[in-house]
Amino acid sequence: MRIGVLTSGGDCPGLNAVIRSVVHRAVVDHGDEVIGFHDGWKGLLEGDYRKLDLDSVAGILARGGTMLGSSRVQPASLRDGVERARGHVADLGLDAVIPIGGEGTLKAANLLAQAGLPIVGVPKTIDNDIASTDVTFGFDTAVTVATEALDRLKTTAESHQRVMVVEVMGRHTGWIALHSGMAAGAHAIVVPERPFDIDELTAIVGERFSAGKRFAIVVVAEGAKPRPGSMELEEGGKDIYGHERFVGIGNRLAVELEERLGKEARPVILGHVQRGGTPTAYDRVLATRFGWHAVEAAHRGEFGMLTALRGTDIVMVPLAEAVQTLKTVPAERYAEAQNVL
Amino acid sequence: MRIGVLTSGGDCPGLNAVIRSVVHRAVVDHGDEVIGFHDGWKGLLEGDYRKLDLDSVAGILARGGTMLGSSRVQPASLRDGVERARGHVADLGLDAVIPIGGEGTLKAANLLAQAGLPIVGVPKTIDNDIASTDVTFGFDTAVTVATEALDRLKTTAESHQRVMVVEVMGRHTGWIALHSGMAAGAHAIVVPERPFDIDELTAIVGERFSAGKRFAIVVVAEGAKPRPGSMELEEGGKDIYGHERFVGIGNRLAVELEERLGKEARPVILGHVQRGGTPTAYDRVLATRFGWHAVEAAHRGEFGMLTALRGTDIVMVPLAEAVQTLKTVPAERYAEAQNVL
Amino acid sequence: MRIGVLTSGGDCPGLNAVIRSVVHRAVVDHGDEVIGFHDGWKGLLEGDYRKLDLDSVAGILARGGTMLGSSRVQPASLRDGVERARGHVADLGLDAVIPIGGEGTLKAANLLAQAGLPIVGVPKTIDNDIASTDVTFGFDTAVTVATEALDRLKTTAESHQRVMVVEVMGRHTGWIALHSGMAAGAHAIVVPERPFDIDELTAIVGERFSAGKRFAIVVVAEGAKPRPGSMELEEGGKDIYGHERFVGIGNRLAVELEERLGKEARPVILGHVQRGGTPTAYDRVLATRFGWHAVEAAHRGEFGMLTALRGTDIVMVPLAEAVQTLKTVPAERYAEAQNVL
Amino acid sequence: MRIGVLTSGGDCPGLNAVIRSVVHRAVVDHGDEVIGFHDGWKGLLEGDYRKLDLDSVAGILARGGTMLGSSRVQPASLRDGVERARGHVADLGLDAVIPIGGEGTLKAANLLAQAGLPIVGVPKTIDNDIASTDVTFGFDTAVTVATEALDRLKTTAESHQRVMVVEVMGRHTGWIALHSGMAAGAHAIVVPERPFDIDELTAIVGERFSAGKRFAIVVVAEGAKPRPGSMELEEGGKDIYGHERFVGIGNRLAVELEERLGKEARPVILGHVQRGGTPTAYDRVLATRFGWHAVEAAHRGEFGMLTALRGTDIVMVPLAEAVQTLKTVPAERYAEAQNVL
Repeated sequence: MRIGVLTSGGDCPGLNAVIRSVVHRAVVDHGDEVIGFHDGWKGLLEGDYRKLDLDSVAGILARGGTMLGSSRVQPASLRDGVERARGHVADLGLDAVIPIGGEGTLKAANLLAQAGLPIVGVPKTIDNDIASTDVTFGFDTAVTVATEALDRLKTTAESHQRVMVVEVMGRHTGWIALHSGMAAGAHAIVVPERPFDIDELTAIVGERFSAGKRFAIVVVAEGAKPRPGSMELEEGGKDIYGHERFVGIGNRLAVELEERLGKEARPVILGHVQRGGTPTAYDRVLATRFGWHAVEAAHRGEFGMLTALRGTDIVMVPLAEAVQTLKTVPAERYAEAQNVL
Repeated sequence: MRIGVLTSGGDCPGLNAVIRSVVHRAVVDHGDEVIGFHDGWKGLLEGDYRKLDLDSVAGILARGGTMLGSSRVQPASLRDGVERARGHVADLGLDAVIPIGGEGTLKAANLLAQAGLPIVGVPKTIDNDIASTDVTFGFDTAVTVATEALDRLKTTAESHQRVMVVEVMGRHTGWIALHSGMAAGAHAIVVPERPFDIDELTAIVGERFSAGKRFAIVVVAEGAKPRPGSMELEEGGKDIYGHERFVGIGNRLAVELEERLGKEARPVILGHVQRGGTPTAYDRVLATRFGWHAVEAAHRGEFGMLTALRGTDIVMVPLAEAVQTLKTVPAERYAEAQNVL
Repeated sequence: MRIGVLTSGGDCPGLNAVIRSVVHRAVVDHGDEVIGFHDGWKGLLEGDYRKLDLDSVAGILARGGTMLGSSRVQPASLRDGVERARGHVADLGLDAVIPIGGEGTLKAANLLAQAGLPIVGVPKTIDNDIASTDVTFGFDTAVTVATEALDRLKTTAESHQRVMVVEVMGRHTGWIALHSGMAAGAHAIVVPERPFDIDELTAIVGERFSAGKRFAIVVVAEGAKPRPGSMELEEGGKDIYGHERFVGIGNRLAVELEERLGKEARPVILGHVQRGGTPTAYDRVLATRFGWHAVEAAHRGEFGMLTALRGTDIVMVPLAEAVQTLKTVPAERYAEAQNVL
Repeated sequence: MRIGVLTSGGDCPGLNAVIRSVVHRAVVDHGDEVIGFHDGWKGLLEGDYRKLDLDSVAGILARGGTMLGSSRVQPASLRDGVERARGHVADLGLDAVIPIGGEGTLKAANLLAQAGLPIVGVPKTIDNDIASTDVTFGFDTAVTVATEALDRLKTTAESHQRVMVVEVMGRHTGWIALHSGMAAGAHAIVVPERPFDIDELTAIVGERFSAGKRFAIVVVAEGAKPRPGSMELEEGGKDIYGHERFVGIGNRLAVELEERLGKEARPVILGHVQRGGTPTAYDRVLATRFGWHAVEAAHRGEFGMLTALRGTDIVMVPLAEAVQTLKTVPAERYAEAQNVL
């Protein structure tokens, strides 16, 4: 069998572990040939690839990033490119293509699968927002990095009697905020799923100081939004250079809480450290299992499917189903994190 | 409601997180009172306890060990102590007792539950061998510590062209060996579930050197045993002082592989570092959720049950069912770790 | 002997280790009494303190922050408060006062020493800018945290073909930038001691891409400034809320480099994580030694002095000398970091 | 200029950082050519080497081990090989040879230097026992690894009311034991420089329990020896297979303390994890500076010298002087660690 693999979308710890696992399983156990496309879908569309053997994946298991490079998928360009992709798959004699990516990638993968290409998807996102799998690799690493930062910030906040507002990743969902906030014992967790009321948030933090505590930690997902009417964010959503991205919710909440509480508040924006570097052991195991099972699915001819974790098992789920909804933080999970004051 | 909590058995990262979560949920949200028994079942049998309020659990979330102390359970003494336990529960006006512990503790908990005491168990073991839950807290920390050690040993092994034989915990099951071995890319993983053949193991490692590789990493669970007739361990199972525990399987395998392969082999026995210290973010979240749901179960009157993780949900499982079998590494999970050469 | 200790100024990993060491050495070895003033000089001026015995410092060695609290020193208020401080020292029967702090604190300490109070200073700053000591504790932890972040960011930058601009602490000196940049192999390091030319910086980074590299890491100290005429920072130095602190040099450099190079650039502002949390082993040892020697100096009656590391020895240096100049990065140290492309 | 580099002796975090720094400084800044000999002196004696350019050292800064391989030096074979070494140096047109190694390597380097070869040595040892430099790279990493383990073991020891006896590296000197013991707050530190009296050690640990403490941590260097007459180690110094190395002082002390104190005692032998894996930021900076200055010394024609850290400066020291004495833990440094109970 001849298998092509590619990584697409934002960086995510564990991508290399999947690539390595695909190569090991396919080459050693099945005697397959494996090629890797460069820079995501772009490599498939342009026929830009390299051969992957055991030596080429030596030493990458614990390395962050992706040895194949990545790029953001543009669905439109991909739609136009279906025939080109089909052409390269045919020319290269590929029996299976394994794209590893997030929501956008999987939508593209589904498109290609429906066009008849032999696709086996592997889900990837540090945000953990893909509905068809219990967890995605990369999430545990992101939570671990955020938790380590929160652990450090707690002692500083306490020494200085401050509010620390820590912005973590999560544009559409609050999983990283929820888990790192629970793990570090944050005093308020603000997630996109539940628009916040600034008065309520101020009250929660203020209550802590009233109770004699010397500090507070607020974790906020980058995608968190105020309840309409609660706080004005419309104007001034950009920084002095017109770049929206550099003045986020974390900074604004720190300013707001400082003014309302009369306590020093400091923002910390964790940013890209959450998606880089060595994956945790958890993510390496999950990524390795996903790669292994993707090869097995290819050999069984199960195309148009996605590897997924359900409990402790890896199962195959239809791509079409996987891309329908975002997995958001349910109310009962959020409630579990409320006993923190 | 009045709740008693205790921790019993071997140390496990996350115990404090459970205690804290029980206190937070019970005291803040339900207005309950919580007491903690000292040193496991001993505290219950002797009525030795302290009151636990929010202040007493401040700062313990990320701390290893258990603020309540622990001791190994002796089922016999507990059996004789049922009436004493009942007496203390009555005298202290307890509506629920939450023991946090491993297999032995849960068997004892089941005994008390069957005698009519209001027990809600929380499973705990770094070995991950409790069948009724997908994972136990402590396991992720143990795997993380072992993986970090394996990562370090790889570069040393490579520089010196050595075989490193790394003994990890796991007396009856090979979960830590399996996961840390997969996470670190070990070249052979030896687990109790599958008695090893020393010739076969030598061949696997030797093949790697034949293929031009400069080193090999072997992970072995402390409970691993040779296939009958494969290697003599019977005699000499003790060290010079007659203490069995200090000359384990790791040391013996290193000696054996060195002699058979003619390559330097070095044993590393990770030991107790695997069960101490700060829990990982994963374990803190799981432990916090277990504590939260144990309190909920108590309030719903669901006694004789155990908190368990199933997929992403925490569910309640009968104690009687939980203690029947050990969760061992199944053949198909072991197979996933075989594409490592 | 009766000794008072206080911590003042910005948070710094190792403060607790000094406090613990003072107490251990003084109480156990000399039979002294030790008290700790709350919240820095404020505690001394207001006579707000607690007794410190062995139990009160148990478990704090590895904890970040300061168990005594801290506050920024206001030299003016302290000048007015000399007599009040003298009064409290007399009333409390103190034979020595050990303030642990940075530049501001040591200036204040010098003031009090010159007024005749029995002061033994312990230098503290993550910035490493105190001239009279080879190193200050806290610095190694800050560099370690920054390096770990840089390690993580490298893989992400590479996967996405980006420039990462990482802002680290250092308002007046570039020590953290220099060391973390060298440790992580940054491709450009921008320090306050050497105002940067934006054209030159762009050229350095651009050259890397021209040479076929896929990414670049730029480390910039928060206090870095452009060479006059090189880049406009005068206007717009504040964010939309008028808060200078949230739109720093890191964000601006990222914007500038992205525009000039036509490559994606992303800023990461590490912020307060650099000064919080568990100190490194190096910092714990240095802090412990400082505390030990401060007590010895007090017993020898060496007042108006400061503990300092010189090579591997702890020596005592006059406070008056210690506060005269800032230790900046010399040209030859900066040159050592230039072979990085 | 043409420079040869080699790494010899036991593994040590930072070796790759030196190699990279030599290549960067020599190739980029001086336009030199650099070759790397394989497997230490062996490569020089056999003329086995590879060319090292910027690409060949990409990504190795943070990696443990040595990309060139290492082997233990046999002084005798080297003595016989002086002429062969001289021949290869001449044939390869080398203007300088930079061996990176520990005591044995530096003795060998001195031998070659005295025979007229253009040698610039770089000291390397995790044990920190080279007298002519304040610190060697690798030491900080070893101390960090040991301290992290000790931090973890403390909570476990406390939960179980145990004595933990932790054996760290240090065959001839106790630097790792001293620093990790101080950093982690060990209750007794046993070093080779000061033969221990088992009665005294038992008394120290016992006193702690008498004072109501629940646990104790003893750090012991692998080379620690009992005071003559204090404890019998003569007989039984080997394990059941006749291998001395697997039943070390840590195991024996645990057995002895358990019997004498009537408290559970557990040995943990940290072993090779102390010398493998990613170097700390401190070690990467020191290693990078050593490499840089070795190249500079070569260009200045300063042969027969060794790079050394003195305070914050890198200086050159005669090899002949460097290998005369071992740097042992002085009594006053040991005294600083005694205020720990």
